[in-house]
Amino acid sequence: MMLVIMRKLPLIAAYVLLVGAPVLTLVAVLRWGARLSAPALIDRSGSVASSPKAAAAPDIFILVAQIAVIILAARAIGYLFRKLSQPQVIGEMLAGVMLGPSLLGWLAPGVSAALFPASSLGMLSAISQLGLVIYMFLVGLELNAAELRRYGKAAMLISHVSIVVPFVLAAMLSFYLYPRLSENGVSFMSFALFMGAAIAITAFPVLARILTDQQLLTTSMGTVAITCAAVDDVTGWSILAYIMVLIRASQSPRPIWMTLAGLAIFLAIMIWIFRKLFAKLERYFDQHGALPDHLLALVIVFALGAALCTEALGLHLLFGAFVAGAIMPKDRRFVAYLLEKFETVAVLLLLPVFFAFTGLRTRIGLVNGGQMWFYCALIVGVAIVGKVGGSGFAARLGGMSWRDATALGILMNTRGLMELVVLNMGLDIKVISPALFSMMVIMALVTTFMTAPLLQWFYPARLRQQVSEPAVRA
Amino acid sequence: MMLVIMRKLPLIAAYVLLVGAPVLTLVAVLRWGARLSAPALIDRSGSVASSPKAAAAPDIFILVAQIAVIILAARAIGYLFRKLSQPQVIGEMLAGVMLGPSLLGWLAPGVSAALFPASSLGMLSAISQLGLVIYMFLVGLELNAAELRRYGKAAMLISHVSIVVPFVLAAMLSFYLYPRLSENGVSFMSFALFMGAAIAITAFPVLARILTDQQLLTTSMGTVAITCAAVDDVTGWSILAYIMVLIRASQSPRPIWMTLAGLAIFLAIMIWIFRKLFAKLERYFDQHGALPDHLLALVIVFALGAALCTEALGLHLLFGAFVAGAIMPKDRRFVAYLLEKFETVAVLLLLPVFFAFTGLRTRIGLVNGGQMWFYCALIVGVAIVGKVGGSGFAARLGGMSWRDATALGILMNTRGLMELVVLNMGLDIKVISPALFSMMVIMALVTTFMTAPLLQWFYPARLRQQVSEPAVRA
Repeated sequence: MMLVIMRKLPLIAAYVLLVGAPVLTLVAVLRWGARLSAPALIDRSGSVASSPKAAAAPDIFILVAQIAVIILAARAIGYLFRKLSQPQVIGEMLAGVMLGPSLLGWLAPGVSAALFPASSLGMLSAISQLGLVIYMFLVGLELNAAELRRYGKAAMLISHVSIVVPFVLAAMLSFYLYPRLSENGVSFMSFALFMGAAIAITAFPVLARILTDQQLLTTSMGTVAITCAAVDDVTGWSILAYIMVLIRASQSPRPIWMTLAGLAIFLAIMIWIFRKLFAKLERYFDQHGALPDHLLALVIVFALGAALCTEALGLHLLFGAFVAGAIMPKDRRFVAYLLEKFETVAVLLLLPVFFAFTGLRTRIGLVNGGQMWFYCALIVGVAIVGKVGGSGFAARLGGMSWRDATALGILMNTRGLMELVVLNMGLDIKVISPALFSMMVIMALVTTFMTAPLLQWFYPARLRQQVSEPAVRA
Repeated sequence: MMLVIMRKLPLIAAYVLLVGAPVLTLVAVLRWGARLSAPALIDRSGSVASSPKAAAAPDIFILVAQIAVIILAARAIGYLFRKLSQPQVIGEMLAGVMLGPSLLGWLAPGVSAALFPASSLGMLSAISQLGLVIYMFLVGLELNAAELRRYGKAAMLISHVSIVVPFVLAAMLSFYLYPRLSENGVSFMSFALFMGAAIAITAFPVLARILTDQQLLTTSMGTVAITCAAVDDVTGWSILAYIMVLIRASQSPRPIWMTLAGLAIFLAIMIWIFRKLFAKLERYFDQHGALPDHLLALVIVFALGAALCTEALGLHLLFGAFVAGAIMPKDRRFVAYLLEKFETVAVLLLLPVFFAFTGLRTRIGLVNGGQMWFYCALIVGVAIVGKVGGSGFAARLGGMSWRDATALGILMNTRGLMELVVLNMGLDIKVISPALFSMMVIMALVTTFMTAPLLQWFYPARLRQQVSEPAVRA
C-alpha cells in the first residue's frame, strides 16, 4: 500500500515527508533540550589516556615495541575473525580494545603499564592521527561521485532517511542521557547533535568489505547498499563538519560565518582549481603508466595541506584529507596505482595503531553497574532500531521487497572504523565523556559485528539469486 | 712496480700487509691517546635540539605542517640538484640542514620557532627513527651476499683497505681533535674509534644512485665500486656495532661478553632459523606472485622485532633492522615486490623527516671562528685523502689503471645518508659534541657533493669506453 502511495507521489514529496518531518522533530528536540542541565559531577578518572599532554621523553624502544605488539595483535585477532566469516577489520578493532585498559590493563596491569606508559601515548596518538589522515585520503580517493549520480535520486532518498531517522532517535535519546552522562560545560545542542551524527554514521569501507566477502557487491542490492553508504558518508561528514564548526565556534572567539565562508572558499578552490590540476596529473599517468616520485610527493603534500586547511578553519584534519581524496581523478587504474603506493603502510601499520590508540582510550570498566549497562544497551538499541528500521523502511518505499529492504537495513547498520574516527573526534573536543565514549565504542563493535551473521541468517545465499534486475527506480 | 710486487705476493700476504699494518698503527694510536684528556669546558648550547626530552604536548597540527614543509623542501631542493646532475638525495639532505638552525633558524628565527618548537622535536625524532628502521631494513634487503662472494677476494681487499686507511688517519686526527673538541666523560678510545668508523663509511645507496646516473653501473669499474661499497657497508656496520658495544658497555653495568654472546646467538638464530623460514615465504611468493597482508605484516613485525633485539643487546635499533633485511631471500622479483610495498612511504615521507631532524640538530653556527673552521677543513681533508687515497691505492694494487683506480677512489668517497645515520647515533650516545656533529655533517655533505662533478672531470665518458674486460682479478 505504501508502495502505491510512493508511486503516486513524486520523489521530491517523499523526500520532504520522510526527511523533512524528522528534521522538524529534531529542531523541536533541540529547543526543548536546551532547558536540561548536565550533571555537576565530572568523571575524569578515565581521561588519563585522553590527554596526551603528559607525554615527556619519547622512548623509541617503547614505540617500536608497541608497534610490533599492535600489528601482531591486530593480525592475530583479525585472522581469528576471518575464520569466523567476519571481516578482518572487526578483529583488528577488537584487538585495539583488548590492548587497552579494558582487557590487558585489567588482566595484567604491570605489562600494560610497561608497554603503554602514559608518557608514550602522545607519540602513539601522533602516529595514529597521521595514519588516519592518510587513510581518510584513501577513503576519499575510492569515493566516486560520478557513480553516485548514476544511482542518484532513489539512493539519496534511502540514504538520507537512513541518516535522519537514527539521528532524530539519538537526539531524543539525548534527552534522557544528557542529564545523566554528559559533562559540565557541554551544551545540550552540541551533545544531541554529536550523538545524532555518531549514531547515524555508516562505515563505507567496512561495508564494501562485507559485501565483497558475501559476494553481494555485484547484485543490485549490493550496488544500492554501497551507493547509499557512500551518500551516507558524504552527508554524514557534512553534518559532522557543521557540528564541529558549531561546537568549536562556541569555544573560539571567531564568528561562525567566517568559518563557513572559509570552508566555502576552500571547497571552491578544491573543486574548481585543484580538481582540474589533478586531471592533468591523470593524463600524465595515462601516458607514462606511473608517477615519478616528485609527483607522488606532491599528492601527499596536497593531502596534508588540505587537512591543515580544514583544521585551521576549525573543523578537523580528517575533513580536508577526505576532500583531497574525493577530488582526485577517478580513473580506475589511477586510483588503483595510488592505493597500491600507500595502502600497505596505511592498512598494515598505521590503522592498527589507530585502533590500539582508540582501545587505550576505551575503558569498559567505566561502564560499571546495572545503570550504566542499561544506558549502554539503550544506545545500542537505538542505534540498531534507528539504522535498520530507517533505511529498511525507506528502501521498502523505494520499491524493494521486504526481505531485500531489511537486508539493506542490516547492511547500513555497519559502523565499523568510521564510528571510531567520529568518537575520537568527540572525545578530543570533549563533547562526550570517557564513559560515554566507551559505551559508544561498544555500540560500534556490536553493530559492526552483528552485520555478517544477521545477514546470513536473514538473507541466505539461496534467496539472493532472485535479485537480478535493478530493484530501485532512478 | 707495485703491481709487480702484487703479482708475486699472494693475496693473503697483501691483505696482511695493507690491512694489518694500519690496524697495528691504530692499536698504537689508541694506546698513546689514552693519556690525552678532553677539555673541561662543555659547550652545551647546541644541545637543545639533541635532547628531545623537552617534548610536551604533541600538537598534531604542527606535526602535519612540519611534514608537509619538509617534504616540499626536500623535493624542491632535490629537484634543483637533479638539474645540476647531482643525485637528488644530496639535495634532500641539504634541505634538512636548511630547515634547521643553520639557515631557517638564522634567517627567520620566528618562523623557525613557530614551525619547529622544541616541544615538537620528540615527535619528529620518533617518526624519523621509525622511518630509519624501515629504511635500513630496505637497505639490508637490497644487499645480496651471494653477489659479494662472486667478486669476493679482490673486492674485499680493496674494500678493507679503503676502510682501514681513513680509519687510521681519522684515529690519528683524533690525537689533535680530542683535547680540543671532545666533551668531558668521553674516553679517547671511544672518541677515536667512533671518528674512525664515521670517516671510513661509504654510502652504498647513494653510490648506487650515482653509478646509475652516470651509466657506470654496468661497467666493470662500476661493478667493483658497488661491490666494494657493499663490503664496506657490512664491514663498517660490524665495526660500528663493536664500537657501540664498547662505548655502551662502559656506560652500563652489564659485562661486555654477555652482549657479544647475545649478539652471536641473535645472528645464529637469524641466519640458521629465520633465513630458512623466509626462504619458504619466497617459495610462497613464487607460486602466488604476491603476499597476502598478514604475511607482509609478519615481515614488518620481524624487522621491528630484530631491531628491538639489537637495541636490547646494547647496540642500536638499526643494526637489527639491517640484519633482518640482509637475511631476506634475494630473488629479484621478491625483493622488488617488497621494495615497492614500502619504498614509497619510506623514501617520500620518512627519509625527508630524518634529514630534517638531522638538520635541526646541525648548527653550523657552532663552527664559528677561524679555529673551528680549521678543524672542520682538517676533518674534510682527512676524510677525502683517506678514502680516495686508500681505496685508489688498493685498486691500483689490485690491477686497475691509475685512472680507473682514482675514479674508484672518488666514488668510494661518497658518504651520503649513511654518514648522517652514523653521526646521529654518535650524537645520541654523546660520543661527539654538537659542534663536532655539525662539522661532520658538513664533511658528509662536501664529500657526497663532490663525487659527481669530480668524476665527470677526472673520468669523462670518452675514457670509460676503454674499460670492457674485468679489471680485477678474483
